[in-house]
This record gives sequence, structure tokens and C-alpha cells, in this order.
Amino acid sequence: MNKERLNQVTANMKASGLQQIIVTSTASVYYLTGYWVEPQERMIALYLDADGQAVLFGNEIFGLSATPELQFVSHKDSDNPVADLARQAAPGKMGIDKFWYSKFLVELLELRPDIVPVHGSGPVDLARTTKDEAEIVQMRQNSLINDQVMAAAIGMLQEGVTESYLAAQINRQFLQHGADGEGRQLVCFGANGADPHHSGNQTELKPGDSVIFDIFAPINHYWCDMTRTVFYKTVSARQRQVYELVKQANEAAIAAIKPGVLLSTIDQTAREIIAQGGYGQYFTHRLGHGIGLECHEPPDVSQASEIPLTEGMIFSVEPGIYLPGEFGVRIEDLVLVTADGCEVLNHYSKELQVIE
Amino acid sequence: MNKERLNQVTANMKASGLQQIIVTSTASVYYLTGYWVEPQERMIALYLDADGQAVLFGNEIFGLSATPELQFVSHKDSDNPVADLARQAAPGKMGIDKFWYSKFLVELLELRPDIVPVHGSGPVDLARTTKDEAEIVQMRQNSLINDQVMAAAIGMLQEGVTESYLAAQINRQFLQHGADGEGRQLVCFGANGADPHHSGNQTELKPGDSVIFDIFAPINHYWCDMTRTVFYKTVSARQRQVYELVKQANEAAIAAIKPGVLLSTIDQTAREIIAQGGYGQYFTHRLGHGIGLECHEPPDVSQASEIPLTEGMIFSVEPGIYLPGEFGVRIEDLVLVTADGCEVLNHYSKELQVIE
Repeated sequence: MNKERLNQVTANMKASGLQQIIVTSTASVYYLTGYWVEPQERMIALYLDADGQAVLFGNEIFGLSATPELQFVSHKDSDNPVADLARQAAPGKMGIDKFWYSKFLVELLELRPDIVPVHGSGPVDLARTTKDEAEIVQMRQNSLINDQVMAAAIGMLQEGVTESYLAAQINRQFLQHGADGEGRQLVCFGANGADPHHSGNQTELKPGDSVIFDIFAPINHYWCDMTRTVFYKTVSARQRQVYELVKQANEAAIAAIKPGVLLSTIDQTAREIIAQGGYGQYFTHRLGHGIGLECHEPPDVSQASEIPLTEGMIFSVEPGIYLPGEFGVRIEDLVLVTADGCEVLNHYSKELQVIE
Repeated sequence: MNKERLNQVTANMKASGLQQIIVTSTASVYYLTGYWVEPQERMIALYLDADGQAVLFGNEIFGLSATPELQFVSHKDSDNPVADLARQAAPGKMGIDKFWYSKFLVELLELRPDIVPVHGSGPVDLARTTKDEAEIVQMRQNSLINDQVMAAAIGMLQEGVTESYLAAQINRQFLQHGADGEGRQLVCFGANGADPHHSGNQTELKPGDSVIFDIFAPINHYWCDMTRTVFYKTVSARQRQVYELVKQANEAAIAAIKPGVLLSTIDQTAREIIAQGGYGQYFTHRLGHGIGLECHEPPDVSQASEIPLTEGMIFSVEPGIYLPGEFGVRIEDLVLVTADGCEVLNHYSKELQVIE
């Protein structure tokens, strides 16, 4: 049990008037207990009350055990999985983690009709938006690995290579660097890059193509995520213009980051540069997303996000321009908000590169 | 909207005293509406009442629309996703699909405290255990494809080939035959086969190895699933003995299948043969599982499953013997229960094969 994180969560519970919550997502349970459990259809729930009591309920198949600061109550497949939790809970409001399966909540409410379920993910989600030192160290290291994988991926560009081949090689590189698993690496040649979510297929690389690499993986449970766009053999005047505009937007947004500024302002900073360059309608998504134990997690980095930056937040800054039928450019960095600005976690160059 | 399936579901609702349910799983929504939606964190819910009224609620991003038999109510990301559903629902008991996210149920109960949530997946899950003609046609066809992929996989055995290479080739074969996506193909050489869930790694094939291929994929949303075990270059007396015992257990279980027999009896039939052969403690899992829109779905085929077989059920029969440190053997077929017995959907030979 991580006491500092627990203290932050219970402070958040008090601030939002929640006396008890249950935490059930794999990432949030790990964040507090250090246990990484993917329960599938089975039950895991960490019960917390605002005074700091923590009791973990889980199927015996997960192989968990109690620790000095954490009570553990196990159940078997043949038991009612929420019976012990129902005995633990206090009457009245109970915060419920957002992705808990309804079959468990229904069962809990049948056993304890005196419980009033309310939204309960907020206290942990909020705590997770501020990374602590151990998390920062891990995410810095993971982004250094991402730099190396990016260099290797760009080094594999040659005429006729396919997007899906490169995507597989990128996963292989990540695994060799200790990644927990594979991801759906985004490799986009030429016009395919005009779809921000295009995934590698059998398209072959040809001279004049832009190449977007949006590559990411979890390593020791924390995600890295970076995008670079390069050009193969030649770059047209229009490609160069679009590239420099996206780079300028990325850099201006990063330069605007410091505690107290709203996330929406960071998004707006990048968006205005692209709009002033005449491509506003082709920047079709939000500027970025929080990242940590999940690749996409709070905070949202968009025009709707009226949340002030605070020290310890880590999120992506990834402006892009997508020209249907032509090409796309996106440049993405992860940034850590510091006391007076930010630290960019990725180091792979953003200078325009033409690969020979 | 599939009227016959809807009629079966509403009959099941009446039989279990449910006047209204909401159906939210991707497979169950597809089963009734023909819409395949993977909502991720967004909301989709098919509201049914026992009189046959059907209203689909979903995010506009899914691109759904009404049909003559199906009302459709869309919402946007900026809306409360359950507001319209809350207006539709009647007071009192409401059956809730088991994997619906609690964030939606909590919201529904805040808007409608007069609703009493109860377990609600049963009526659709029960209907889905009896496959109709369209489903049977699809699953027969998919198992024929599985036969071909099995033949191709066995044809790729050669000294030094790795498990993970074969697993990737099997996925490629399935995709070429129209599979919807890739699966975690189980390819196990020698002692690796003693772990029923071993997944392909860099182990290389060597003479004397047993080779388990447990291969499966969804094709047009319906799963196939088959296991064969072959031997490379040589087969020992012990391997042969174990193989013939597993084959006998598989065949005896299949011979015992007809409407009215309990699923537990089918499991027991296979289990007794293996026990009488002296390997009872090495058959460590249930005999099989229902299969259809999900690879594992009801009915359970185990000693605990006191459910009588009915015509139209499709499930796996997959006895195995796992000898730690030595090797494993598993033989799996899908069977369709018919009026007086069953039809085996897989046709790849079960005779002992030694691959030269």
C-alpha cells in the first residue's frame, strides 16, 4: 500500500464529500496497492474509507495477500464475490469506480439496499493526474526507450517496405526493451497519414511519401507515446510548409506550459498557430491527453478542458494537420509540468528530416 | 431487428419475471439488432420490454439508425448518455446486462431512484445457447476454414521452427480466410504442452516433441475453435498411450451427446475414461465451453453444469492430459446438438499422426 498516494486519495474523498469508495480498475488498484490484476470477469475491489482504512477484496485465483497496511479478504469462484464487501460497507453514499461491472453492483445493492451508489472514480483519477517521483523516473526512462525505438524505426525506412512490417518491428523493439506487451503502432505512409487513426497495412513506401510514426507501449505499467513525421527521399514545398507549421504549433504550446495556465489555453495556443497558417480546419482533434498507467487518462488537453496546469502533470502535446488524399503531419511529445515550465520527456529531433 | 430471436428473449423474460431489461454487450446487441458496436467508454443500450418493444440508445458516433422494428435514440458526447434511457424506463425491477459499466448504472439510478436493478443478462444468454439456422450455417463454414488452417499449420512443422512463428502464420491464414481479427493462438512444443494455457514463444521444434495446436478465430463474428496434437518425427510408447486415451475420451463424450443428457454427464464420460486409464489427476480443466458470438459463452461444460442438452447447442469437447516436464495432449472438437445426437463441426483427422 502506497501511504502517500492513499493520503492524497482520502483527502480528495473528503473534499468531494465521499466517506467510502471502491476502486476496481486495474490501473487504480495498482496505483494504490502495487498489485497488478487483470480480473477479466472475476471480482477485485479495493474498499477505502475517508479515514484511510483500506481493504482489498479479490478472487483467490489472483494470488494476492495482506500486507501490514492492507487487509485482504479472498473469495472463491463458488462464492458470491461481493458478499464480504457487502459486510464491510457502511450505509449511505458509496463511490463506485466507473468501469466496475454492473453484475457486481447489482449484487451489492441486492445485499445492501441501504447503500446509495454515486460516481466514485474522481478521488483516485485526480490523484493520478499528479505524478510522484517514482512515476516520473519511470516515465522519463520509458520515453528514453521510445527515443531509441523511434530512431530504429526511422532507420528501417527503405523503398517498398510496408507499414505493417514496420509496425511489427516497432513492437519487437519495444519488447526487447522490456515492454509489457504490444500496441497497435500507427505507421502511415503518404495519403494514409491524412487519417489520424490509420493503422499500418500493406501499403509500400515510395519516394515523396511523408511517414508518420506514432509509437507507444507500456513498460513497467507506464506508457510512453511519441509521434514523429519524416519524409522519404524528397519533400515538396507544401509538405515543408505544413511540417514547419505543425512544429511551430508543438513548440509554442510547449513554451506556454507552466503551472496555473489552463489546459484549454495550451490547446488554443497550438490551434491558433495552425489556423493563422491557413490550415485550421485540418487540425481535427484535441491537442493531447494525460498519460501514465493508461495511455489515455485524465487530464484531457482540449478546448473544453478548463483545468489549470499543476506541477507533476504529464500529458501529450500532439498537433497535426491532415490533408485528405495528400498527406498528414503530426508531432507529439510528452511533457512533465515543472515548477516554472515543463520538461519534455522525448528527445528525438523535431527538425525536418528527409530520409535518403 | 431479428424478430424470432426477440420473441425468444421476451419469452425468457416472462419466464423469469422480468418486465424490462437492458442489453449492452457487443455480442448480445449484435445478436438482436445486427449492429456490431464496440462502444469502449461510450454508451450503447438496447431497452426491451416483455411485450416486445425495443429501443436502442447509442452515441451518435456509432453511426446507427432506426429500422422499421427498432426505434433508435442517439446522444452526443456532450449529453448525459443515459438521460433518454431514464425517460424510457418503467418504475420497478429492471434487468441489467452483466458487463455494463457502473458509471452508467449509477447515473441511471440517480435519475430514476424508483428503478430496482436486478441481474438481467439471462434472457439473452439463454436464447444464445440455442443456435438458429443462420448461426449454424456460419459456424459450420467457420469450422471448415479451421480444418484448412489446421492442415496448413501442421504442414509448416519442420525442425527448428518456433512456436511464435507458427502462431503468427496461423493468424495470417485465418485473416486470409476472412477472419475478423487475430487471436492468441496456442502452439505448444514438448513440455510446453503440459501447461494448458501456454502461448507460443521462441521454443524451437525438435524430434520427439508433441505439438499442440489450439487454434481459433472469429469469422463474421462467430468463433471457430479446434485443437489437434501431433508428434514430430517419433512418438514414444507413453506418448502413444496418452494420445489414444485422450482420443478415446473425446470420442466417448461425443458419442454420449443427445438432447436431454446433462452437460455434467458429458464431462463425466470423458473424465472417467481418463481416470480409468490412470491419468485422472492430469486432466485439470473442464471438458468444454459454449461458443458462438463469443469464444467462451454459456453453456459451461463441466461437472457443475446440471443443464440438459438441447438441440441447437454448440460447444467444445476438449479433454486433455498434461504431464508436467514431459508433454501434453489435447483433442478438441466443436459439436452441434441435433435431434438424436450431434454433428461434429471439425473434420480434421484425429488419428495419431507422426510428422516426418
